[in-house]
Amino acid sequence: MPQAPAAIVTLTSDFGPGLFVGLMKGVVLGICPQARLVDLEHGLAPQDVRAGALVLEQARGVFPAGTVHLAVVDPGVGTSRRGLALKALGQFWVGPDNGLFTPVWLADPQARAWELAEPAYFRQPVSQTFHGRDVFAPVAAHLAAGLDPARLGEPLLDPVLLDWPRPFERGRELVGQVLGADSFGNLLTNLGRARVEAFLRGHPALVSLAGLTVRGLSAAYGQAPPGTVLALFNSQERLELALNLGDLCGHLGLEAREVYGLEVIVSAGD
Amino acid sequence: MPQAPAAIVTLTSDFGPGLFVGLMKGVVLGICPQARLVDLEHGLAPQDVRAGALVLEQARGVFPAGTVHLAVVDPGVGTSRRGLALKALGQFWVGPDNGLFTPVWLADPQARAWELAEPAYFRQPVSQTFHGRDVFAPVAAHLAAGLDPARLGEPLLDPVLLDWPRPFERGRELVGQVLGADSFGNLLTNLGRARVEAFLRGHPALVSLAGLTVRGLSAAYGQAPPGTVLALFNSQERLELALNLGDLCGHLGLEAREVYGLEVIVSAGD
Amino acid sequence: MPQAPAAIVTLTSDFGPGLFVGLMKGVVLGICPQARLVDLEHGLAPQDVRAGALVLEQARGVFPAGTVHLAVVDPGVGTSRRGLALKALGQFWVGPDNGLFTPVWLADPQARAWELAEPAYFRQPVSQTFHGRDVFAPVAAHLAAGLDPARLGEPLLDPVLLDWPRPFERGRELVGQVLGADSFGNLLTNLGRARVEAFLRGHPALVSLAGLTVRGLSAAYGQAPPGTVLALFNSQERLELALNLGDLCGHLGLEAREVYGLEVIVSAGD
Repeated sequence: MPQAPAAIVTLTSDFGPGLFVGLMKGVVLGICPQARLVDLEHGLAPQDVRAGALVLEQARGVFPAGTVHLAVVDPGVGTSRRGLALKALGQFWVGPDNGLFTPVWLADPQARAWELAEPAYFRQPVSQTFHGRDVFAPVAAHLAAGLDPARLGEPLLDPVLLDWPRPFERGRELVGQVLGADSFGNLLTNLGRARVEAFLRGHPALVSLAGLTVRGLSAAYGQAPPGTVLALFNSQERLELALNLGDLCGHLGLEAREVYGLEVIVSAGD
Repeated sequence: MPQAPAAIVTLTSDFGPGLFVGLMKGVVLGICPQARLVDLEHGLAPQDVRAGALVLEQARGVFPAGTVHLAVVDPGVGTSRRGLALKALGQFWVGPDNGLFTPVWLADPQARAWELAEPAYFRQPVSQTFHGRDVFAPVAAHLAAGLDPARLGEPLLDPVLLDWPRPFERGRELVGQVLGADSFGNLLTNLGRARVEAFLRGHPALVSLAGLTVRGLSAAYGQAPPGTVLALFNSQERLELALNLGDLCGHLGLEAREVYGLEVIVSAGD
Repeated sequence: MPQAPAAIVTLTSDFGPGLFVGLMKGVVLGICPQARLVDLEHGLAPQDVRAGALVLEQARGVFPAGTVHLAVVDPGVGTSRRGLALKALGQFWVGPDNGLFTPVWLADPQARAWELAEPAYFRQPVSQTFHGRDVFAPVAAHLAAGLDPARLGEPLLDPVLLDWPRPFERGRELVGQVLGADSFGNLLTNLGRARVEAFLRGHPALVSLAGLTVRGLSAAYGQAPPGTVLALFNSQERLELALNLGDLCGHLGLEAREVYGLEVIVSAGD
């Protein structure tokens, strides 16, 4: 994976936009002045590792090869949890070993990981409360500058993984799960277009969730009247449920953190 | 319009800061690695095309020649609404053809537009729900990298335009309109300094809005006591009404979306 | 202080993220196209100069030499308050002369300042309401491009300084002060690790604030049960009080602006 002169470093965290993110960028630019910095998401609910994983999953496939993704959602900072660098899908992923990279690891059978064990690549002294600045940002910057990840530490063969549900069939239903909600309150599922279309074999879809049933799939948000619940394949070709011009998550009386695992049932209509 | 090595691409949207903006940046950098990315505004009220137009109007005149402004406020995504690239005021403007670029188009009689019809400049496959990532970001990146806009598609001679009111005189009054509110709750009008000063011919101003009357124009926010309504020419030399150290929009009991079109009446005092 | 080709310009303001920040960046890039722009904090409470000073204090020591810090919290814009450029701690600091740079000035006995008096380095015409765009951004860009700060104006020997309290001993207590709260509601104090450890001489700490007493110092947030108040040395080696997985500021019934000056009392336990 050759490093272009303008290596991209993305940043994802639960810090909110602001100083802590800015400090990580200062550290990156001190080590790799040519890095191009791109914020992905800093509005994650505090310490919501799963929401962070879902953001990273959505970023894969969009950035050029060699991009370094720095992600810090780190409830275990200062404890014995490990840090890791992952090489997967042609890109690098750096952060705490707490499951944040689960969908990336699962998506690439060739994925490799290394524990962050070499203090020479850290900012010294390492704070016990801000590894984003002192461990993950400098490691990301060194990778962006071309460092061989094998120099970071021993291979890490057993990264922590979150439970990451897969769709299954139950009788005449295809059962998926909600993985999270985006900032508009749309519900993201693990049902890909190919799987759903193969299941439906040309029949119209009935999609049920939490007692609501949607008939048919929309091609775009604008196709349904305002205030209507609709189901569509989103920009990642995943089934998504939305309230047109509204917030479905709020409409269901749920917080974004509470939607994970809700069953989404697809069946063939007439 | 020669492209410098460090072409600037600005981004404006109603996505909120976060992942969707980050993905557009990833696409831009994949096509034009040397692009300099600048966020203008992502906190627009959802689908508020007029607010987006007002942001873009305020950006004109500030960025260097050749800057590419990518703007996505796109309630019609996935429908038959067109996309366009506009060359106006020495810069490029890329987004949906829904009126978002009205003030730019009106400000430059030499403005030219092209419909985005050439899929070779899109990211494939094109999602039906995220043209920001798949259509507008790649087109903006190609323009930043020096593409001749005529290669994007046929000239578009009739871009969609919003109603964009102009001040007029009514008896002994100069009547302007509120165009929107900024994030501080200050009300922005279409009354420029030159027009107002020519009307007043040295007389002190009386400015009325929604039953409030302000006597005299301030030179700066700090010139009026806290909590006072004041009128001043803002950083764009436009008449603006503000509540010093407060939120005038909220003080009037209005949402930012509701202030558009309010009459602002200037008359000459003693 | 030689300027690298990729000079960094950081931005701090009370503008909120959005258009006004984007306009300052457009001005910087028009003057210094190679500048690397990093947002530090734009969510400061409006006109809270002290909160801005605290952000800048936390940024010192993190960015590479030669970085230019542009900061605009400017209640006096349009009045006779001066603007300044400061050279301190190997970096430049540019903004209004209202105390925003107090901790930087106090931290470097070799600090030097210049009044911004040379209109050739301003954007013309200079608005009376947006010196961030028309004065401070262009000056920051010129410094990032290598301008000798002595060309900006006369040396400014008496910058405005905020009261910036220092810890003191009172009987058998070490008395510090809260300087502010971060966006998580953690309380930041002026008590550094070295001072506290020298005072305690190996005894366990008792830390009192606003009627609460914490026994012992934690090494990390994760060491205390959720909902517990804890005291720890933060990523700047300053004593910080936090509510684990909560918002201590809110828990005390205080706004972030109200915590400044609260006494934090350290004494030696058994």
